[in-house]
Amino acid sequence: MALINAARLIADLRELAGIGKLGTGVDRVALSPADIEARHWLMGRMRAAGLAARMDSVGNVYGRYPDAERAILVGSHTDTVPQGGWLDGALGVVYGLEVARAALEAGGASRVGVDVVAFQDEEGSFLPCLGSRSFCEDVTEAEIRAAKSKDGLPLIEALAALRNEGPRIRRDPQRVLCYLEAHIEQGPRLEALGRRIGVVTGLVGIRRFRIGCRGQADHAGTTPMAMRKDAGMALFRLATRIADEFPGLGGPDTVWNIGNVALRPGAANVVPGDGEMTLEFRDIDPSTLDRLEQGVLAWVAEASRGPLSLHAEATARIPPTRMAEHLAQAIAAAAAAHGEEPVFMPSGAGHDAMVLGRFMPAGMLFVPSIGGRSHDVAEDTSEADIVLGCEVLAAAVAKLRQALETGSV
Amino acid sequence: MALINAARLIADLRELAGIGKLGTGVDRVALSPADIEARHWLMGRMRAAGLAARMDSVGNVYGRYPDAERAILVGSHTDTVPQGGWLDGALGVVYGLEVARAALEAGGASRVGVDVVAFQDEEGSFLPCLGSRSFCEDVTEAEIRAAKSKDGLPLIEALAALRNEGPRIRRDPQRVLCYLEAHIEQGPRLEALGRRIGVVTGLVGIRRFRIGCRGQADHAGTTPMAMRKDAGMALFRLATRIADEFPGLGGPDTVWNIGNVALRPGAANVVPGDGEMTLEFRDIDPSTLDRLEQGVLAWVAEASRGPLSLHAEATARIPPTRMAEHLAQAIAAAAAAHGEEPVFMPSGAGHDAMVLGRFMPAGMLFVPSIGGRSHDVAEDTSEADIVLGCEVLAAAVAKLRQALETGSV
Repeated sequence: MALINAARLIADLRELAGIGKLGTGVDRVALSPADIEARHWLMGRMRAAGLAARMDSVGNVYGRYPDAERAILVGSHTDTVPQGGWLDGALGVVYGLEVARAALEAGGASRVGVDVVAFQDEEGSFLPCLGSRSFCEDVTEAEIRAAKSKDGLPLIEALAALRNEGPRIRRDPQRVLCYLEAHIEQGPRLEALGRRIGVVTGLVGIRRFRIGCRGQADHAGTTPMAMRKDAGMALFRLATRIADEFPGLGGPDTVWNIGNVALRPGAANVVPGDGEMTLEFRDIDPSTLDRLEQGVLAWVAEASRGPLSLHAEATARIPPTRMAEHLAQAIAAAAAAHGEEPVFMPSGAGHDAMVLGRFMPAGMLFVPSIGGRSHDVAEDTSEADIVLGCEVLAAAVAKLRQALETGSV
Repeated sequence: MALINAARLIADLRELAGIGKLGTGVDRVALSPADIEARHWLMGRMRAAGLAARMDSVGNVYGRYPDAERAILVGSHTDTVPQGGWLDGALGVVYGLEVARAALEAGGASRVGVDVVAFQDEEGSFLPCLGSRSFCEDVTEAEIRAAKSKDGLPLIEALAALRNEGPRIRRDPQRVLCYLEAHIEQGPRLEALGRRIGVVTGLVGIRRFRIGCRGQADHAGTTPMAMRKDAGMALFRLATRIADEFPGLGGPDTVWNIGNVALRPGAANVVPGDGEMTLEFRDIDPSTLDRLEQGVLAWVAEASRGPLSLHAEATARIPPTRMAEHLAQAIAAAAAAHGEEPVFMPSGAGHDAMVLGRFMPAGMLFVPSIGGRSHDVAEDTSEADIVLGCEVLAAAVAKLRQALETGSV
C-alpha cells in the first residue's frame, strides 16, 4: 500500500522547479528573489498540509507537525548552485513535505510527529550549510559578518531581504529526535550498479590543500634547461606522483582531485616562475585521510630540495561524519520491504546531514542520478525512482515513529 | 686605439632609456607615444651625425650613410615589451648610430658606408618583426590589416599616429650588402662562462603547439576514480613524459617549455572536464625539431587511446636561420683582436636578424646579460661590456668595409 501520494509529490517538485526555472534546470541561488519566492511557496504548501510554518532571519523554513511533543525532522535545502538542477536539495524538502502531509492525512494520534525543514545556502553561495549550522548553533556571528558571495556581496546585505522574518530557529533537543535527509546521489554508482536506493553510511571527510611552487621566470629560448627553475614542471611531477601513489595509500572509496592549476606569468616563451594547484582528497576514514596527507607533505618537502621551493597549505579540513546505524538500518529495511536491495555507500558530497549528524542521530537516503550528473541543468532522476525513494523514506519514517512512540529506539 | 666614443655611446643609451622610462627599465611598446618619441629622438641623433634619416609609415627609422653607393646595415629595434629593459633592441640601434657616427668622424672616402636602422615592433605588440618584415617585403597587407594588440587595438589604427610619415622603406639589394645586429644575450650563458662576446651561429627554429584534452567534468566527491575522465591528469602525465623523454631526443642546446596550462571548470571539487597547455621547443637543427615533434605527436596519440581525447595543434613553426659564416668570423676576429675569446652560440630568442638573414648575409653579436635577465626592468649589462661590444662591432664593420671595398668578400 502506498504511504504517499505520488502524483502530488511529482506535481510539487515540478511546481517548485518552475521557481527560478532555467531550461531543464533551476537557478535559485541562496537569498536571490527566486530562492525567497521558493521558500514562501514552501510555507504555503506546509500550511495547506496542516504544518505550522515559519521562515527565520537566515531564510530557514521550518514546518512544525501539529500536536506532537517530539518529532523526526525530515528535509534538505531549496537553494541551488548557479545554473543548477531541479532536484539537488528540492527532492529532500518535498519528500519531507509529502511524508508529513501523508502522515497527517492518514491520521491517528501520535506524540512523534514529522517536522519538515528547508535549510538556507547549503550550496555555500555565501556560507556553506549556513542554514543547518544556524539551526545547530554551529556558526558564529563573526562568520556571518565576514561571509561574502563570489561577487563580493556581503551575506548580511543579502539577508536584509529577510528583515521582517522571525528570529533564528534553533534545534530543540527535547523535540527533535533525529534527522533524515533524502538526496540525489550526484554520482554514477547506483546507476552503474543498476540499484535504486543508496543508504549513506557517512559523509566523507575532505582535506583541501593549496600547493604552491616558487621557481624563477626566465626566457624559455635563451635559458639552458640545466639552469632553469621551472615551477610548472615541479607541479606536473608532483601531480603525477600523487596519481601514482594515492591508490596505494588510500582505501577502496578514496577519491582525490587536482581541479585547478595556474602558472605565472603564463606565456608560451617564459619559464613558469611560480604556480599553484589545488588538491583535495576525501574518505570516510580519518586515518586514511591522515595517511594521504602525510604522503603529500613528504613529497612536497622532497620536491623542495633543490632550486625550487614548494609549500602546501591546508585550506579545508572537514572531518568525516558517520550516519546513525539504526537510521541506516531503518532505511535499508524499508528498501527491502519494497523489494529493493540497497547499496551502503559513503556520500562523497557534503550535505546538511553532515552538520546535523554532529548534534543528533542522522540518516540519509540516495536516489540515482541519471548519468551521475548534478550541479547542472542536465541533472535528473526518473519519476519512478523519485516516487520509490519517497515511499521508502515514508516507510522508514513510519517504522521509526512507531519505535520511538513505544520507546524501542 | 678606440674606434668609438665610449662616453657618447653610454650617454645616448641613457638618454634613449629616459624616453618611456619606468624605474630602472623602459616601457616603449610599439607605436605608443614613447615609442614614436624615441624614433624622433633617433632621427635627430642620426641627422646630427650626418646621416640622412627618415621614418616610414610603419615606424621604421633608417639613417643613410652619405655619399656611399653601398652599405653595411647595422641596427635593431627601439620598441620594447611592456615593462621592459633599457637595452633590449636599443643597444643594437645605438651601436649602429655610434659605429656610423665614428666612421663619419674618422673620415676617409668610402663607397661602402654604414647605414643604421631601428625596426618597428620586433617585440610583436601587434605583429612580431613588423618592421624588418616590411623592410624585406615579407609581410602582406592582409596580415597588417588583421594584426591587433592583446587589448584588441588594430594595428592599422595604431599606425594612424604615423600617417604623415613617408612610404615604406624597402631594402635595396644593390646598396645593402649585409646586416649586423648586436643585442644583449637575454640568457645566462656568457655570464656563467665568464666570457664577454657571443658570436651567434644562427637563430633557433621554434615550434609551438597547443595541446588540448577533452574529458568530462564530474563531481570530485561522488565520482569513483575508475569512472573519471580527468583531462587535467592526462595533461600532467603528458607534461611529465615530455620532461622525461625530450632530453634523449633533443640536442645539447635544445630547449623546451610548457609555459601555460588551463583546466576547466577549474574548481577544487570538480574533475577537470577539459584543458589545454602550450608546448614550445627550440633548436638550430631542423631534424632535431622534427624528432621532437614526432615524439610529442606520438605521445598525444597514445594518451588518446581510452576515454580521453587529446589533440595537438601547431600554432607556430619558425624555421632556424643560420647566420653568415664570414660575418661570424669577422666578429670573432674582432673580439680576438680585443683580447676576448668569443663564445659561438645559437640565439634562443628571435631577432630582426632572423628576418634579414633570409634575404641577405646577416651576423649577430651578443653582450652578457647580468643574471640572464631581460624583458624586465631589471635587465642590465655592465658599462664595460657595453663599450667592449660596440668596439668589437666597430672593428668588425671596419674590416668588412675594407674587404667589401676591395672586393675580397
